[in-house]
Amino acid sequence: MSLQKARERLSRLVDAQSVAIVGASDNPLKIGGRPIAYMKRLGYRGALYPVNPRQAEIQGLRAYPSLSAIGKPVDMAIVATGADLVEQVVREGVAAGVGGFVILTSGFAELGEAGAERQRRLVEIARESGVAILGPNCLGLVNCESRLVASFTTAMEENEFVSGSFSFVSQSGALAAYWLDAALRSGIGVAKWITTGNECDIDVAAALDYLADDPQTRVIGMYVEDIKDSRAFRRAALAAARKRKPVLAIKAGRSAAGAAAAASHTGAIAGEDRVYQAFFDQFGLCRVGSLTEMLDVARLFLADAVPDGPRLGIVSVSGGAGVLLADEAEECGLEVPQFGAATREALAQSLPEFSKPANPVDVTGNIVQNAPMFRKTLDAIAAAPEIDGLVLFIGLMHSIADTLAAALEDLRRRAGGKPTTVVWIGGRPEVIDRLRARGIPVFGDIPEAVRALARAIRLRRFWQQPEPKAAESAEPPPPALRTETLIERRSKERLRTLGGIETPRSVFVPAATSSTENLAKAPLPAVAKLQSPKLLHKTDAGGVVLNLGSQAEVASAVENLFRLGRERNLPVEGVLVEEMASFEHELVLGLRRDRVFGPLLVVGRGGVEVELAPDVAMAFLPIDAAGIAARLRSLRSAPLLAGYRGRAGIDVDALARSIAALADSFLRHADIEEIEINPLVVARDGRVLALDALMTVRSA
Amino acid sequence: MSLQKARERLSRLVDAQSVAIVGASDNPLKIGGRPIAYMKRLGYRGALYPVNPRQAEIQGLRAYPSLSAIGKPVDMAIVATGADLVEQVVREGVAAGVGGFVILTSGFAELGEAGAERQRRLVEIARESGVAILGPNCLGLVNCESRLVASFTTAMEENEFVSGSFSFVSQSGALAAYWLDAALRSGIGVAKWITTGNECDIDVAAALDYLADDPQTRVIGMYVEDIKDSRAFRRAALAAARKRKPVLAIKAGRSAAGAAAAASHTGAIAGEDRVYQAFFDQFGLCRVGSLTEMLDVARLFLADAVPDGPRLGIVSVSGGAGVLLADEAEECGLEVPQFGAATREALAQSLPEFSKPANPVDVTGNIVQNAPMFRKTLDAIAAAPEIDGLVLFIGLMHSIADTLAAALEDLRRRAGGKPTTVVWIGGRPEVIDRLRARGIPVFGDIPEAVRALARAIRLRRFWQQPEPKAAESAEPPPPALRTETLIERRSKERLRTLGGIETPRSVFVPAATSSTENLAKAPLPAVAKLQSPKLLHKTDAGGVVLNLGSQAEVASAVENLFRLGRERNLPVEGVLVEEMASFEHELVLGLRRDRVFGPLLVVGRGGVEVELAPDVAMAFLPIDAAGIAARLRSLRSAPLLAGYRGRAGIDVDALARSIAALADSFLRHADIEEIEINPLVVARDGRVLALDALMTVRSA
Repeated sequence: MSLQKARERLSRLVDAQSVAIVGASDNPLKIGGRPIAYMKRLGYRGALYPVNPRQAEIQGLRAYPSLSAIGKPVDMAIVATGADLVEQVVREGVAAGVGGFVILTSGFAELGEAGAERQRRLVEIARESGVAILGPNCLGLVNCESRLVASFTTAMEENEFVSGSFSFVSQSGALAAYWLDAALRSGIGVAKWITTGNECDIDVAAALDYLADDPQTRVIGMYVEDIKDSRAFRRAALAAARKRKPVLAIKAGRSAAGAAAAASHTGAIAGEDRVYQAFFDQFGLCRVGSLTEMLDVARLFLADAVPDGPRLGIVSVSGGAGVLLADEAEECGLEVPQFGAATREALAQSLPEFSKPANPVDVTGNIVQNAPMFRKTLDAIAAAPEIDGLVLFIGLMHSIADTLAAALEDLRRRAGGKPTTVVWIGGRPEVIDRLRARGIPVFGDIPEAVRALARAIRLRRFWQQPEPKAAESAEPPPPALRTETLIERRSKERLRTLGGIETPRSVFVPAATSSTENLAKAPLPAVAKLQSPKLLHKTDAGGVVLNLGSQAEVASAVENLFRLGRERNLPVEGVLVEEMASFEHELVLGLRRDRVFGPLLVVGRGGVEVELAPDVAMAFLPIDAAGIAARLRSLRSAPLLAGYRGRAGIDVDALARSIAALADSFLRHADIEEIEINPLVVARDGRVLALDALMTVRSA
Repeated sequence: MSLQKARERLSRLVDAQSVAIVGASDNPLKIGGRPIAYMKRLGYRGALYPVNPRQAEIQGLRAYPSLSAIGKPVDMAIVATGADLVEQVVREGVAAGVGGFVILTSGFAELGEAGAERQRRLVEIARESGVAILGPNCLGLVNCESRLVASFTTAMEENEFVSGSFSFVSQSGALAAYWLDAALRSGIGVAKWITTGNECDIDVAAALDYLADDPQTRVIGMYVEDIKDSRAFRRAALAAARKRKPVLAIKAGRSAAGAAAAASHTGAIAGEDRVYQAFFDQFGLCRVGSLTEMLDVARLFLADAVPDGPRLGIVSVSGGAGVLLADEAEECGLEVPQFGAATREALAQSLPEFSKPANPVDVTGNIVQNAPMFRKTLDAIAAAPEIDGLVLFIGLMHSIADTLAAALEDLRRRAGGKPTTVVWIGGRPEVIDRLRARGIPVFGDIPEAVRALARAIRLRRFWQQPEPKAAESAEPPPPALRTETLIERRSKERLRTLGGIETPRSVFVPAATSSTENLAKAPLPAVAKLQSPKLLHKTDAGGVVLNLGSQAEVASAVENLFRLGRERNLPVEGVLVEEMASFEHELVLGLRRDRVFGPLLVVGRGGVEVELAPDVAMAFLPIDAAGIAARLRSLRSAPLLAGYRGRAGIDVDALARSIAALADSFLRHADIEEIEINPLVVARDGRVLALDALMTVRSA
């Protein structure tokens, strides 16, 4: 289904003007009672229709015996009945023209085979009827603007609505509840809140796409455990990026224990975390580690206080705190550049004699109480071409809150003003609230402020990059039923037909002949490798002989390898005799079809480092040579490739073009499941050579 | 001066029973007025004597014209006069028998040469008289127990005293004020608070030592920019470790900009941050990045809630949060082990059917409302032999606070109970305060809780290690006036006399003879290296010829090297012809006398990694072979040394013994300033060889 259509279907739910609650209860603490109680208290603007065949009135509202008995248009039916009644309720609702369903009931795929069967029937209804279904086993949704609370979340028990521009989509009801409570309680405000539960129809991708398009939403928070439709998710992420809406995502399951638990608790196996991270990086999702971190980053975006680049000017009332800020900034990949002569000159005129005009600027506690000098200092730094943004550190000093707020507002209003973030340690809550209310982001300590800035700046820089080659990837082939891994010789034969990467010069000595005829043509120095489908990883078993300098040595090695094959009783196709190419740089390259995310390239440093301290980059296909070159240059060992301490460098762009050609071929040849080249080397003569390669293909 | 004596001198100040304030003011907002106002309001238990020659009464107290006019014992004089009067006041006070001085006045070493001269005179007075001086340019000290506030910090403006077991020592007044405010405001409580300012006498080492001995202090916080007497500091750190008092330290100046700023603002050059980190690691200081992190770790120690080891059991009301906890735990180096059969069995009996008895345990929101089942579950996990501590995650659910607190207290009382930490997201402040008041550490989100646990557990494990070989290091030699770097051949000659590390077999061809006589004895294959004091780094200049397989090749190489010397007009001593030893493992080793911390060993992986992604460990001397072996095994590349993918491993303990022997020699030979061995290799025959070495010695 197209995202556009999913968006319209979900919109019918989120913007519902009329809501029925099936399984409605008089008890405001029950699942079927809470939504009614919340909406009554908070003033939902649409129509509410409790449905309960046993009561004529519920919580003061007229109740109906069934959805079909309402007799008026119903945009959304909230379903809070027992699990075994849900299918019947939905079928009846579809027949009655209900616009969509929010199924709060649990007891579906998360609970054994009987539940899974119930859920499959819901999936069918959604597919056949075209109505949207949120859930089952979800915590529902909230629309702050219309005061719609299609949810039984306890987060609405004590909170009032605070309208805002921050929206949230979650695969966990509990985390969503914590977010809702925090966003309302902190005053940051909420636009839309959507929990997807078991995702029998509407999934996080659809919800993300909806929020990317929603005019009230400026910042999107997300909690995700597993992505089922990565192509839809990719398109939705890029839609948000195109609108410059940050997507701040918590992804659970980084650790082994966590991944195992995630699998057990959502009924979906969490993808390998590093692949998720690469996916987030490539498609511009900002990963955060906690709700607190999410709110911190959101605060910066909501206040339009994200600097354009990583260069920070620091102004501090405490020298020590200024140093700690600079420390944390560099730790997070930000910069604290020195000021040029003009800035130093301007600062020298505003700062007291004992303050040096150096970044970080220590204005001392005194200057803050001298408002004109303080303003001049802030002006001088805000105008500095050396920096992209300003961080101001205050400690205690509660009395200066208003003076400070006024100065910062002035600063923002004037041209040339840079985004300013305030760290106010020991600031009283009412003081911090007052500044925040004026749109100034305030943090209570240094690390959280700087980490949030670093994350936000990184995302802004992602937006400034040219858009990835293609948002769309091809429809993935159905999972392979049977696959076969080709021996090195056949893998390399196939590899040569794909283009991009060369293989070393070689001769092949077939087992059948065992003649030494071919050996006269063997390139020297050579390596000889036994070719047996039962010995794919040859080196450890002695199936590789290196450094053969003469034809006699080659012949002897070939003979020994055949003997090894006989001794081990291996099916042997022959011996591959290859040139030993001279090279400086050893890489590994993998291409595979990830079960969740589709075609994936992995490239990195080879040699012992592969397992010792992996230095790899990943990219989802399609990707062009420039994208691959950027990834090669992002490796920790990139300085080696550039030429390092007397070692020759390589042409990284040429290497990237070779890899890109192979990756494109891989995309076009759906029968290839996986290619692993280890090592991939750049020979001294510039050839990009697969010294060893294994390819896995679909069997007929 | 001995630490014992410094401790007594400082004790006279901290425990002062009678306090004079010189420069006393009626204005409670002035530096000379604030201490009096604070102590009057808070009920200081000792005698207060304002000193001001122009007033007979100050803030309702009888004032005295001078210190000598008081005529009663004075333990402490707070000095708040102008900088030019300070020396005179102190001299008069010493003469009058004042016990010690807290000099709040600024305008000393931090402010140019005139100030530095004033400070030098204070240093002399302290040395000659034996009285303690805190400051100058400090924020003074606070003793919560006796309600002594020898400080003008604004942190006491709005706060009341909350006595506790947490003490703080700081080189920054501002940071100390923020700490004081936070520790009082959060209710965590304070024992002693000491700011050292310009440290003309009492420095952080002396204050740390005092707090290590202070019976009221159980946890010590510290802010440090530069350590002046590292030997005293080392002894104080080990004294705290011996008493099992955690020292939680913030060290500013990690970054380049930060280090530059720290230098400018304290008048002391910040040591290289990595050396500080190594020092902290070796002597058991726990480094934290912010005051917030410090309070978080302190909370765990103050509640006696630090697990004995890294294995956590996680119980969560939200599956997603349990996963996030497990993720963060593994990220921080903690473990979330699987439960054994007995624990699983016990859990199966307490958990509802849909909860799996796996770690992390998802008890769901329902069970928490079922107190007996919840207790049984906590009991089962607390008794599990697989874990060292328990983390409990709660979200919202304000109503269960008391039930929960009771269950946790029960748990703690019973035998076999494990330390429990609570993460309560969205918990209302009053709920969190109530739990904290009962001694249960509660955190507001996951990362801060887990990071604090990881830090605290690491420190506890440090305490469990055997004590470092020696707390004391030898009196450092005075800084060298002139040094000389020996050429390779002479460096290696000297190295051989030190023992521990061997050098390759070699012959030397002196420049004078240029004869080829020696060459007959050259070991093959060989490397030839030009020996010139003007060419210490030979490789890049072509002064090294490798892989010489025959005597003829050696002779030719020697000739070419002499020609190179002539062409470049270099003073040449000769050519060193050495065996090319065969090896797998390349290291670097350095021994030097750090200006701040004294003799220091640096050892790490050699080769291109040295600059690409340094993998080194440091140790301060003296250190034994076991300590060096532990450091070798802590290297990222340690698996290589252990033998890796077909490569032979080495005997790490034997290597460590070689290095330890050399390090001991280095300690005994004070004329050696620095030894750099790069590469240090373990040859295939097991010899530990310095392939290249440079030594810097003191000139006569």
